[in-house]
Amino acid sequence: MSYVNDAAQAVSKVRELSPLVHCITNYVTVNDCANAVLAIGASPIMADDIDEVEDITSIASALVINIGTLNRRTIDSAIWAGKKANELDIPVVFDPVGAGASGLRNETTKKILEEIKVSVIRGNLSELSFIAGLSSSTKGVDSSDADLDKDPVAVASAVANLYGCTAALTGKDDVITDGSRCVKLSNGTAMLSSVTGSGCLTSALLGAYIGAVGDGFIASCGAILTTSIAGEQAYERAASLGTGSFHMALIDYISLMNEETMLKYAKAEVIK
Amino acid sequence: MSYVNDAAQAVSKVRELSPLVHCITNYVTVNDCANAVLAIGASPIMADDIDEVEDITSIASALVINIGTLNRRTIDSAIWAGKKANELDIPVVFDPVGAGASGLRNETTKKILEEIKVSVIRGNLSELSFIAGLSSSTKGVDSSDADLDKDPVAVASAVANLYGCTAALTGKDDVITDGSRCVKLSNGTAMLSSVTGSGCLTSALLGAYIGAVGDGFIASCGAILTTSIAGEQAYERAASLGTGSFHMALIDYISLMNEETMLKYAKAEVIK
Amino acid sequence: MSYVNDAAQAVSKVRELSPLVHCITNYVTVNDCANAVLAIGASPIMADDIDEVEDITSIASALVINIGTLNRRTIDSAIWAGKKANELDIPVVFDPVGAGASGLRNETTKKILEEIKVSVIRGNLSELSFIAGLSSSTKGVDSSDADLDKDPVAVASAVANLYGCTAALTGKDDVITDGSRCVKLSNGTAMLSSVTGSGCLTSALLGAYIGAVGDGFIASCGAILTTSIAGEQAYERAASLGTGSFHMALIDYISLMNEETMLKYAKAEVIK
Repeated sequence: MSYVNDAAQAVSKVRELSPLVHCITNYVTVNDCANAVLAIGASPIMADDIDEVEDITSIASALVINIGTLNRRTIDSAIWAGKKANELDIPVVFDPVGAGASGLRNETTKKILEEIKVSVIRGNLSELSFIAGLSSSTKGVDSSDADLDKDPVAVASAVANLYGCTAALTGKDDVITDGSRCVKLSNGTAMLSSVTGSGCLTSALLGAYIGAVGDGFIASCGAILTTSIAGEQAYERAASLGTGSFHMALIDYISLMNEETMLKYAKAEVIK
Repeated sequence: MSYVNDAAQAVSKVRELSPLVHCITNYVTVNDCANAVLAIGASPIMADDIDEVEDITSIASALVINIGTLNRRTIDSAIWAGKKANELDIPVVFDPVGAGASGLRNETTKKILEEIKVSVIRGNLSELSFIAGLSSSTKGVDSSDADLDKDPVAVASAVANLYGCTAALTGKDDVITDGSRCVKLSNGTAMLSSVTGSGCLTSALLGAYIGAVGDGFIASCGAILTTSIAGEQAYERAASLGTGSFHMALIDYISLMNEETMLKYAKAEVIK
Repeated sequence: MSYVNDAAQAVSKVRELSPLVHCITNYVTVNDCANAVLAIGASPIMADDIDEVEDITSIASALVINIGTLNRRTIDSAIWAGKKANELDIPVVFDPVGAGASGLRNETTKKILEEIKVSVIRGNLSELSFIAGLSSSTKGVDSSDADLDKDPVAVASAVANLYGCTAALTGKDDVITDGSRCVKLSNGTAMLSSVTGSGCLTSALLGAYIGAVGDGFIASCGAILTTSIAGEQAYERAASLGTGSFHMALIDYISLMNEETMLKYAKAEVIK
């Protein structure tokens, strides 16, 4: 399984290179994002003031833009940081949290995609359906039942083709495609939905992976397998204790993730 | 004990309906608030930009306004969101963190209560005393000793009568009243004061409960019993380990809360 | 070892006096800062709006300014709060997170040091080197290898002399000096670098200590020994589990810290 092999080698690469990841992200899950980036062996820097985002992006190996608690101030910062990243060929990961849920999120999502060339868009079926221009019914920031009958492969492919990027659609199964390659990943546990931030931290991890390996498709495989396999291991240890223990164990197993673990547990189906 | 029975049934109702709870809250405890809402089976959305709060409130089942780290930007957002909630008959929970501690908090508290019809005000004795117009000496965001000789029942009743809402006063004992009904709850542990956010997450839980059952008095009973009983259970498991473990165990036991547990452990004294 | 004795007695003093600590800090690690302040027995209040910072500082025993996620709004608030603190002789702790990493951080650091009289500056070698006016190469918010050949004692002494304050330089070894006194502390574990916020929470703890004992040099010894000894204990319990468990255990052991533990484990070398 060549994609999984490459993703597993990427874990070692992240730990070896320890890329600096600039995150412009929400204040709900920012601590988990920073700890996840550290747990996989990279180095996070959170900075969102327009007067410094260009400086910070310039010294980073990747930029992650997450609109979970967007506001006028941070939207402008994200745009500026993204343009600087494009100028310097620094990869940009975009997490369109709640796209479809409010006019502001919709406009911001469109604006970011118009003004910035992104390497990876990671979102759930609602968010990527909105981006694909398909009708989307969003209930808050989580996937809604109405999206469940849409085909994740079709949605992810549409997004990848429209924006010339990797689309990483996470859900019960995860679909990752850059147009030419496509894989379905089937790790994870429903308990990941019972703590806030598993999506956000996957996007932050994606910044670490793409900062180390460059390839957005392999980076997406690595980041998503990290969260979902660590989620399975956390479930084993902590499910009966409750969601607080699960949350902590999730970070634990991200910090223990390595090539061997990823190769041993990854469930992948290559579509093309 | 009919109030406790109703509160216990409300736990199941929250888990069945999974209401979307819009929180405009502080950045100190926001992660705990989101995780508590998820742990009780509801769905949180944190959004505070004035350009989207009306959209977000419109799709929510409850709005929670917490002024823990208020600023001019989020104060306006809270007011707008509250007015939209009133317009759509969506219940509003207000947590006046630190009311009495600064001019800005005092003005904001007054402004919110003047411009928005709130269903529940949850606070400690200092905060509710300030709201009741009684003299209040606040030491930061925690209850101060000077308040301890005030009568919680009198303070809560004054607040409920003044604003035609449920007043949920938390402290060593908790007093909940909507003017016609009044109950004193006696669960909890002093260790809840040694982690930040037990008040904030109770207010967030209140959003989940009121979103599911509508009745602010019963919602307050449910939310407060959830935190205080889970706190007792967390104390049993983790007190000797330290406050970090206690904090995690608190979320654990919220995620395990159900009708049986609430009925088994609730200590309630009906006042009227 | 008189400094260690004084620091150990300071633990009891913090628990006895429970000073109120006003923190203007970043949104990444703010929850850990609040929980650390509570864990050592003090009382945190996080407030950063310019319309209330003077009120809040006025009722506090110490002010902690941390520029981890600074922005124009909070920079002004920090300056106002600092001036009010100076006016009222309330000690100010300054954590120049990432000084050297962006123009904005550099200007802000300079501005704060020009306009506010600070009692303690706590930072890593990169940050304090920048402040000392020495050439500094900063990689994000962590110390970079290029700084490792600089002499921490020389850097800390330069900062202490330049600003007439205590310089608390944390790293593999920690150096604390106020010009007349100087000590090297050697507790801690590399795992403290694998969770975000150990520096920030040390600065927050410093607010608790200086609020209780006044002396910035002894407060720095107390705060740094608290984090580093608790870190060693957390490593013992949780290292094999992962960084999530370590993070939680760190807060646990801060909450259990007392005179005996500090005296038993402190590794200090008095330089003068």
